[in-house]
Amino acid sequence: MTLSVPPTEALCSLRWNAERQVVEIIDQTLLPHGLHWCELQSLESYCHAISTMQVRGAPLIGITAAFGLAQALALNPTMEHLQRASAALLATRPTAVNLRWALEAVTAAVHDLEPPNRAAAALAAAQLLRTRDIANCARIGEHGLLLLRAIKPAGPLNIMTHCNAGWLATVQWGTALAPIYKAHAAGIPVHVWVSETRPRNQGMHLTAWELQRAGVPCTLVADNSCGQLLRRGAVDCVLVGSDRTAANGDVCNKIGTYLKALAARANGVPFYAALPESTIDWRCASGDDIPIEERTESEVLAVTGVDARGQRQELVLAGSGARAHNPAFDITPAALVTALVTEYGSFEASAEGLARLRSQMSSSSPM
Amino acid sequence: MTLSVPPTEALCSLRWNAERQVVEIIDQTLLPHGLHWCELQSLESYCHAISTMQVRGAPLIGITAAFGLAQALALNPTMEHLQRASAALLATRPTAVNLRWALEAVTAAVHDLEPPNRAAAALAAAQLLRTRDIANCARIGEHGLLLLRAIKPAGPLNIMTHCNAGWLATVQWGTALAPIYKAHAAGIPVHVWVSETRPRNQGMHLTAWELQRAGVPCTLVADNSCGQLLRRGAVDCVLVGSDRTAANGDVCNKIGTYLKALAARANGVPFYAALPESTIDWRCASGDDIPIEERTESEVLAVTGVDARGQRQELVLAGSGARAHNPAFDITPAALVTALVTEYGSFEASAEGLARLRSQMSSSSPM
Repeated sequence: MTLSVPPTEALCSLRWNAERQVVEIIDQTLLPHGLHWCELQSLESYCHAISTMQVRGAPLIGITAAFGLAQALALNPTMEHLQRASAALLATRPTAVNLRWALEAVTAAVHDLEPPNRAAAALAAAQLLRTRDIANCARIGEHGLLLLRAIKPAGPLNIMTHCNAGWLATVQWGTALAPIYKAHAAGIPVHVWVSETRPRNQGMHLTAWELQRAGVPCTLVADNSCGQLLRRGAVDCVLVGSDRTAANGDVCNKIGTYLKALAARANGVPFYAALPESTIDWRCASGDDIPIEERTESEVLAVTGVDARGQRQELVLAGSGARAHNPAFDITPAALVTALVTEYGSFEASAEGLARLRSQMSSSSPM
Repeated sequence: MTLSVPPTEALCSLRWNAERQVVEIIDQTLLPHGLHWCELQSLESYCHAISTMQVRGAPLIGITAAFGLAQALALNPTMEHLQRASAALLATRPTAVNLRWALEAVTAAVHDLEPPNRAAAALAAAQLLRTRDIANCARIGEHGLLLLRAIKPAGPLNIMTHCNAGWLATVQWGTALAPIYKAHAAGIPVHVWVSETRPRNQGMHLTAWELQRAGVPCTLVADNSCGQLLRRGAVDCVLVGSDRTAANGDVCNKIGTYLKALAARANGVPFYAALPESTIDWRCASGDDIPIEERTESEVLAVTGVDARGQRQELVLAGSGARAHNPAFDITPAALVTALVTEYGSFEASAEGLARLRSQMSSSSPM
């Protein structure tokens, strides 16, 4: 099935069901072998959805947490409960700054209100974050498209991406994939090299699935192949997302991003990180200040797929007694990033570039 | 179980069974979940063992092919049959130059002999290649140990490796792992970061298994993690093997090696390739002349492991309709290689360095 471009409301990653008063999310742990929606209502279900990566991607994590806080307030609108719920949601994952940003936005929206008014205001704030995310991602797509056109106005373009920074990582469009969807919609021939993104295989499970549905030609490769592809001239640009961006332009993104940035630089290929401004942590002076989530070693030592009967199964890959280290993110120094693509435009990855972004933010809405 | 160091004859990867007149190999496709020996006698069984990677690693491929040619001559000692058998063995895998080198060595040993004398001479030549490989790998270990001692004379050393260049890739000792075994035997505390080496997971399946048996502490990581480890100072040196080395010092090795070399260089960490001289292709002016084997996409799209009952199984990872590209090797430019560690000593990875190696070869035996 080919998805109409742009991605339609029917194919967003998270939606509010007003009738049932629940949030519905795609359970991303079941992709690409099954498309299942599940409902979130209790605080526990929200925390579980984020920590087990039923939802993932910095923007989507933030929006999910915002709805989780709103629903917690619907049950108990005291500030004490808000703080407890906020702390529980914040503790689910340490790296993406959007989580904190979204919780702060909802908290600010209800802070001065009387308890009976808080739940509705919080829900409205969460819905506004969701709507803005869609608009911001569409703008990132347009700004990124300008960069793609600057490389080859009429294509064909070979773009390498890592992990999933598509509409499954946001609500619609995505960050890194938004310019690709925009280029495809504009009739520019695009082909995407999708690195599988071990250990959780988000490239294989999510990005390839998204691109196939949208009719964008793509080819999976082992993460190890990305250097060779860049070296032999098979890539016009690398386009990734960011889980947190430091004030100096350092980009924290899925583990393995740094290796692609090194290989892109060594071979003169532009390397772009696409992100909403909410992903920038102005309080982090550099990438070294960003906490890197360490996940369970079983993600490396074992793997999930489907067997010949189409049943989901887990297999152990490693021998008995083997141990693993499993950091989820790495830091790509700003010097390796050709530009940061945001809803406000593209900026140099540097303190100066981000200062320009900030001054543009204060003088205008995203454009 | 801890292996006595150095690896004993009982734990070599390939042995000649004189009584049964067969070669016995460890079926490496079944590691680490089972240690099974299998017998090779027919030409078909040799070709199958190499092409399906029951044996792999440039030195071991060469030695296996040498025995295969000797056994083919035992059945039919004509030069026509030798040429047919040699062509069949040469066609099994395109990248490792040791295959051609070993077949040429056996052919040279029988070329001037009468047919009745050829099989015995070929077998003796194959056995000599095997014995020399063990001695050469031990020398590589000693020369590499000097480099490790130069980094930190008493350790502790954190060494990163890729794929498997241990005794499973040779007959005993290995190439990249030989200095590690020598350091461990010398009482230097060593810890090895083992990258899993997708898509075939030789790091996870073979290197971790080898190191665990030898009592060398090691930790598995996703290939994607290697940049971050180098960036945060967790690695003292990178030590890999080589499937073919060009006359200018470019190193062709398992896909993903190039990314590690880039990250090592960016972070001031030495990057060594350890290889017997037989791996150098003096006819290849640069790495770009080396043919890169393209393997089946199913190696990327699916994976083999063991289920909860300990049964080997294959799972599909990718969604339906997904396609993959699967080059088995990449080229690391000589400029990124700190030194080539050979049985003749360590040399600069350059035409000049290899010219010195060559002049040393002509003036002396390995030392």
